[in-house]
Amino acid sequence: MTGAKLKVSIVGITGYTGTELLRILLAHPFVELAYLTSRQHDNEALAAVYPRLAALPAVQDIVVTNTDYATVAAESDVVFLCLPHMASQDVAAQFLGKTKLIDLSADFRLSDAETFKRYYHEDHKAPDLLDGTFVYGLPEINRTAIETAEAVANPGCYALLIQTLLLPFRGQIKQADVMAVSGTSGGGRSPRDPATHPVLAQDMNSYLINEHRHTPEITRTLGITAEQLNFLPTVGPYVRGIFASAFVQTDASLDITNGFFDGELFTHVVPEVHLNHVVSTNHCHVHYREGTGGTIIAQGALDNLLRGASGTAVQNMNLMCGLPETAGLDFTTPVYP
Amino acid sequence: MTGAKLKVSIVGITGYTGTELLRILLAHPFVELAYLTSRQHDNEALAAVYPRLAALPAVQDIVVTNTDYATVAAESDVVFLCLPHMASQDVAAQFLGKTKLIDLSADFRLSDAETFKRYYHEDHKAPDLLDGTFVYGLPEINRTAIETAEAVANPGCYALLIQTLLLPFRGQIKQADVMAVSGTSGGGRSPRDPATHPVLAQDMNSYLINEHRHTPEITRTLGITAEQLNFLPTVGPYVRGIFASAFVQTDASLDITNGFFDGELFTHVVPEVHLNHVVSTNHCHVHYREGTGGTIIAQGALDNLLRGASGTAVQNMNLMCGLPETAGLDFTTPVYP
Amino acid sequence: MTGAKLKVSIVGITGYTGTELLRILLAHPFVELAYLTSRQHDNEALAAVYPRLAALPAVQDIVVTNTDYATVAAESDVVFLCLPHMASQDVAAQFLGKTKLIDLSADFRLSDAETFKRYYHEDHKAPDLLDGTFVYGLPEINRTAIETAEAVANPGCYALLIQTLLLPFRGQIKQADVMAVSGTSGGGRSPRDPATHPVLAQDMNSYLINEHRHTPEITRTLGITAEQLNFLPTVGPYVRGIFASAFVQTDASLDITNGFFDGELFTHVVPEVHLNHVVSTNHCHVHYREGTGGTIIAQGALDNLLRGASGTAVQNMNLMCGLPETAGLDFTTPVYP
Amino acid sequence: MTGAKLKVSIVGITGYTGTELLRILLAHPFVELAYLTSRQHDNEALAAVYPRLAALPAVQDIVVTNTDYATVAAESDVVFLCLPHMASQDVAAQFLGKTKLIDLSADFRLSDAETFKRYYHEDHKAPDLLDGTFVYGLPEINRTAIETAEAVANPGCYALLIQTLLLPFRGQIKQADVMAVSGTSGGGRSPRDPATHPVLAQDMNSYLINEHRHTPEITRTLGITAEQLNFLPTVGPYVRGIFASAFVQTDASLDITNGFFDGELFTHVVPEVHLNHVVSTNHCHVHYREGTGGTIIAQGALDNLLRGASGTAVQNMNLMCGLPETAGLDFTTPVYP
Repeated sequence: MTGAKLKVSIVGITGYTGTELLRILLAHPFVELAYLTSRQHDNEALAAVYPRLAALPAVQDIVVTNTDYATVAAESDVVFLCLPHMASQDVAAQFLGKTKLIDLSADFRLSDAETFKRYYHEDHKAPDLLDGTFVYGLPEINRTAIETAEAVANPGCYALLIQTLLLPFRGQIKQADVMAVSGTSGGGRSPRDPATHPVLAQDMNSYLINEHRHTPEITRTLGITAEQLNFLPTVGPYVRGIFASAFVQTDASLDITNGFFDGELFTHVVPEVHLNHVVSTNHCHVHYREGTGGTIIAQGALDNLLRGASGTAVQNMNLMCGLPETAGLDFTTPVYP
Repeated sequence: MTGAKLKVSIVGITGYTGTELLRILLAHPFVELAYLTSRQHDNEALAAVYPRLAALPAVQDIVVTNTDYATVAAESDVVFLCLPHMASQDVAAQFLGKTKLIDLSADFRLSDAETFKRYYHEDHKAPDLLDGTFVYGLPEINRTAIETAEAVANPGCYALLIQTLLLPFRGQIKQADVMAVSGTSGGGRSPRDPATHPVLAQDMNSYLINEHRHTPEITRTLGITAEQLNFLPTVGPYVRGIFASAFVQTDASLDITNGFFDGELFTHVVPEVHLNHVVSTNHCHVHYREGTGGTIIAQGALDNLLRGASGTAVQNMNLMCGLPETAGLDFTTPVYP
Repeated sequence: MTGAKLKVSIVGITGYTGTELLRILLAHPFVELAYLTSRQHDNEALAAVYPRLAALPAVQDIVVTNTDYATVAAESDVVFLCLPHMASQDVAAQFLGKTKLIDLSADFRLSDAETFKRYYHEDHKAPDLLDGTFVYGLPEINRTAIETAEAVANPGCYALLIQTLLLPFRGQIKQADVMAVSGTSGGGRSPRDPATHPVLAQDMNSYLINEHRHTPEITRTLGITAEQLNFLPTVGPYVRGIFASAFVQTDASLDITNGFFDGELFTHVVPEVHLNHVVSTNHCHVHYREGTGGTIIAQGALDNLLRGASGTAVQNMNLMCGLPETAGLDFTTPVYP
Repeated sequence: MTGAKLKVSIVGITGYTGTELLRILLAHPFVELAYLTSRQHDNEALAAVYPRLAALPAVQDIVVTNTDYATVAAESDVVFLCLPHMASQDVAAQFLGKTKLIDLSADFRLSDAETFKRYYHEDHKAPDLLDGTFVYGLPEINRTAIETAEAVANPGCYALLIQTLLLPFRGQIKQADVMAVSGTSGGGRSPRDPATHPVLAQDMNSYLINEHRHTPEITRTLGITAEQLNFLPTVGPYVRGIFASAFVQTDASLDITNGFFDGELFTHVVPEVHLNHVVSTNHCHVHYREGTGGTIIAQGALDNLLRGASGTAVQNMNLMCGLPETAGLDFTTPVYP
């Protein structure tokens, strides 16, 4: 790492992952922003696109553009793709080999086009790139590969929590039954009928039970089949965070969790998991105990936009660029209460 | 009132005022539902349109239709129009003279097309009907006229609260400065960008300051000009209710409020106004005290969907049809906590 | 049922179950209130104790008293005990045999003093009354017994939901893993450190895992041991409602749930469980589907204060007194949104 | 400012201002913690007192103590008092002259014991110290005095917002009518009946109208009497933030606000005030416009625990110690959504 700052661009600045990434990078000690792109907001001041940032001296000169991707690639050390579902497939090739690339969409997380189609119900448009071009960005299992990767596919938010939570039992799971409650920001920024405040403000409900798109990421990492996982994605009445509870059937002993995350800077075993202990931080809290019937009960929580998306993306950037792994992510304590 | 039940129809069943009206009418002792209409849901079971009602025996046989308005008018004793902005102007004439009509939109609340255009920024499409055809449905001032009316224009939610709150000072107000916080259901059901849960769940902000469409209803009733009113409509982080605070400059004495609402069954002077004391009821709570600088401080609250819209519409129906004024509205206590 | 109304008293009117009961009884067509008792509020107007009710004509003449229990028993057809934990044990005997008695506390739900001590960590003070004197008030399993009972012990809120949810598999459950999220009103009215708004407003956390006091009610009804149940009671960031998810290992077929609740007026199988479809109603919604690994996934929801406590208590009263089972409970639709 | 870090202590670490201060100081580049004191938690690990911090490497070695104040004073460059109401009066003298002192309570904000008694209803126990010993810590008006002060009294949260909001009109206000909505964390950490989640989660209500303790700070700064201010403190259903609306009668022109806050790093004029644009930041947003009746409408918002308390306290420390005014406070953007 030299004294020069990394030139970093965000392609697709208007969604929640893009703005969360911007929030982190504005305070990152080793980063300077190169391009923030948006099709709708070409040549608008960032302060006009996001009035909540308008008052900040630091953003006064930043302009959002619709710069062509060749230029973005040529003039950036790192590019984050924060595009909607399916869109990264169209543009990834324009960046590969020209800059380090981190994709926050689901487009390159899986290993084969068939699995993609089964869960996403569309044909993958760049199936050749599912060959390992992208390293799956879960540092706990791929840290070394990420360090030398040119392209990283950032995990899904549910997937990141559930994989992390069950990682100690990897390869030894007979059945995992998971109920995970996500805040409403998990649905992204676009307004849809069921995403309005009156509808969600006092509701809980599960959706896409055993059909959620994050399933194949989870099963691949944990070494199980979809037939060994029950996954109840559930929306809860709050904005940020995922709180997951799992009942695990395994021959592994609870002892396997002791010290398992030693050395992980952002994952911690705690005696009691609280959502508001992790929201607004990059930390994931996990907890394990013996249950009845030979099960192990596992619970965990993280901030879905931060650790579950843009925070891990920055952690991956740090690893790819030889920066301290926690750079830009070490806000020490949650905004609490 | 004979033993026969009133045949009542709702034109436009899919918005929040329509569904709140349905909720009241399903439990109204003197009502049977005739038609529930919707363009999108022609011939669908009500239980399919609203899964939250699906389990109720009472709704099993109810079908939503797109019945022509001539038939609805001919076969209903009372018709409620719960249509979007501007739409009632197109259809009201088809009901007038054929059935009692209560319009919950803003289309017939005002007295002249010019004022309508100034606040709604569109030409009124049925200006002839602004001639008094519709009685303004605020029982506190128009009870007698409502009792014999064939058509009633139901007040806006903010307008209903602010008029009620300041009614004791009517005709004696020099200046009224009002800050009113509404829940997010006030924005209606349609999904829009600023109406999503993540955006609204922890926000407050004012909008359309001194330009809100409910302004001319308020000034007309109170006998002031728009130049004597400051009105800060504000969205708060909750679903139902409006909480209004007013600073009133008046020569009237605070004593004028003593006993002013005696006899009103749904408006009560209380020592302390709490939003959660009125939400889920048809009651409006108001409170008055001397302020400094010769002002009177007035505060009030109501449930915007219930008392602020569909509850008052039913109260108007009761008056128009010679029913007990509180029929169907006398849920005695709020759902609390 | 004659024309005369039942004289009904509530002993302990200041807690959440007491006030929710009051809310129901004030609108119950076959009930007149006899005594509402409280030690702290002897001889205070109900309207003074609960300012949110102050404006209601119906409560103007109601006075809260600290009437001696002999008088309450003598002058009431039905008495509800809404006392804190352990307090009903001291007073129940004063009512038994003199009036119909419904206890909303946990004091008489269990069958033996040993189990009581194991989960409540105190010696039961009236162990003789655990002999069947109180019928367990779950109509789905004890309807006939309740109809002739002199005393009923009303189920706990979690217990009521989880028993109802798993009832179709009763006697055939090998293992049940349950994650249930309750609103904050489940903790009762008394202020405690972890119950403040700032602490709970954006949190989720599980507590008393596999040690919750409602456990033995659940296991007794379902015919399992505590070793066959994992139960994660969890507090969620909302006021009312419980949303439960269960993974059930059973030899029973999913088909067993078809029609299982036919005839139950307040329990309904729905295609998708939403918390805000049941809150403010007396209904319980349940849903079943095949999971992986031979499990059945079951989800259910109810309003913890209403169906989970005071609503079921009134249902039990209706049964005990020969009233229509749904009397006073048939608010048709939820307050939504 | 030398290379050495400031030794900073917090006396009273368990309340909300103490923990928010800790959150800021843990990330402050020029600070090292000396003592964190608490009577209840003597010699406990910080990680035990606050489990939400337990996982952080940075706090592993920090111990909370009940160290005598002489030692704290002797070994600290700066001491923050975060004690309950009335307690700072007993202990302030032990720190004065020995260390720089910043008091976050209300004990030394006012100028005379009489005014204190009028609003706090108790006799001040150290009236001699109301003689100017403490500089009132509002940098916008006292920056120079703060820079050389040995003791600073940090403003109240409402007071800080309302003074800042109306500062442009200082000395020219004829009447100010203010409605300010605060989140529930404004009530502090101690559990009280009206502070529970069920009671506050969906309520708004005003309290201490024209009697709030922050009144004399506001009137003193603005150059008005209590008879020229209407102040409606109001609790809203969210945790953090204050949103204030004011109607100002003044001969000053709106133009006076143009550029008024130029140079202020934490106060910004914006076209639209949103609560969630300032919560979790140290920024205050303000907005001004012409109203009717010759009034000026002013709105503003800030985070009550951060800018409204501990953030401003740190800003004052920075000024007192010759540090960059924004050190430790320049988190650039709000946690949003």
